[in-house]
Amino acid sequence: MGDVIEGVVTTPLDIITGDDGDVMHAFKKIEPDYKSFGEAYFSSVKYDHIKAWKKHLIMTLNIVVPVGEIKFVLFDDRKNSISKNNFLEINLSTENYQRLTVPAGIWTGFQGVSKGLNLLLNIADIPHDPEEADNLGINEIQYDWSMSK
Amino acid sequence: MGDVIEGVVTTPLDIITGDDGDVMHAFKKIEPDYKSFGEAYFSSVKYDHIKAWKKHLIMTLNIVVPVGEIKFVLFDDRKNSISKNNFLEINLSTENYQRLTVPAGIWTGFQGVSKGLNLLLNIADIPHDPEEADNLGINEIQYDWSMSK
Repeated sequence: MGDVIEGVVTTPLDIITGDDGDVMHAFKKIEPDYKSFGEAYFSSVKYDHIKAWKKHLIMTLNIVVPVGEIKFVLFDDRKNSISKNNFLEINLSTENYQRLTVPAGIWTGFQGVSKGLNLLLNIADIPHDPEEADNLGINEIQYDWSMSK
Repeated sequence: MGDVIEGVVTTPLDIITGDDGDVMHAFKKIEPDYKSFGEAYFSSVKYDHIKAWKKHLIMTLNIVVPVGEIKFVLFDDRKNSISKNNFLEINLSTENYQRLTVPAGIWTGFQGVSKGLNLLLNIADIPHDPEEADNLGINEIQYDWSMSK
């Protein structure tokens, strides 16, 4: 999982299997990480493709991966952070079914790991607003994305 | 689509395609059907399997289907409803990518249509509470679920 980053939380979630299909928890208002609801959207990422890097200035991400497998890489360059310059790596899937909560201020990238559909749901605390996010090109933060890692 | 049921809303949603993957809208706080956030969860249903019937007494369902295809059947037995005894049928998928908003008081059932994964996301306005839902066996509301329909 690499380093720890201050404020990033992973929360194991239940999958209840059944004869007709499953129920998979995502997020409940009563959970301690719930702040508010702004928008829910899906994002898919193709096998070995990478979406990186984005840093939200206000939005908190709450991400689950119900289909496929996605590798997330987080990078902390916050001034005065106790985890400054740390990278956190985590693969989410139904095999490792956890919610990843990313506070504002953390650089985030992700990569499709399975050859089928790789799908994430983000339940964000504010609606999408391009003005509150910064972007960098994939090579502007040094990280080895090669799949053999 | 069968009949109309008072209070049921379908909202077409955007899918933004990209070279690395897609972004698929689900629900924004600023949309008119947004009431509150209680819980988000996934439910899958196997091919030709049926999950029916359930009626919520308080919860409003906001359902999207990001993977596969699911047939929803809604039945209105509300006293004094102008759509009493109506059935509404709708198939949701990425081909017909809409949000289905079901108010409290409507019987709901659904069936897996594709042979792969059929997955729905429900963004409910209250957290799950078994006390606020009624259940009936599949044969307790007369409906022909045969796939040839």
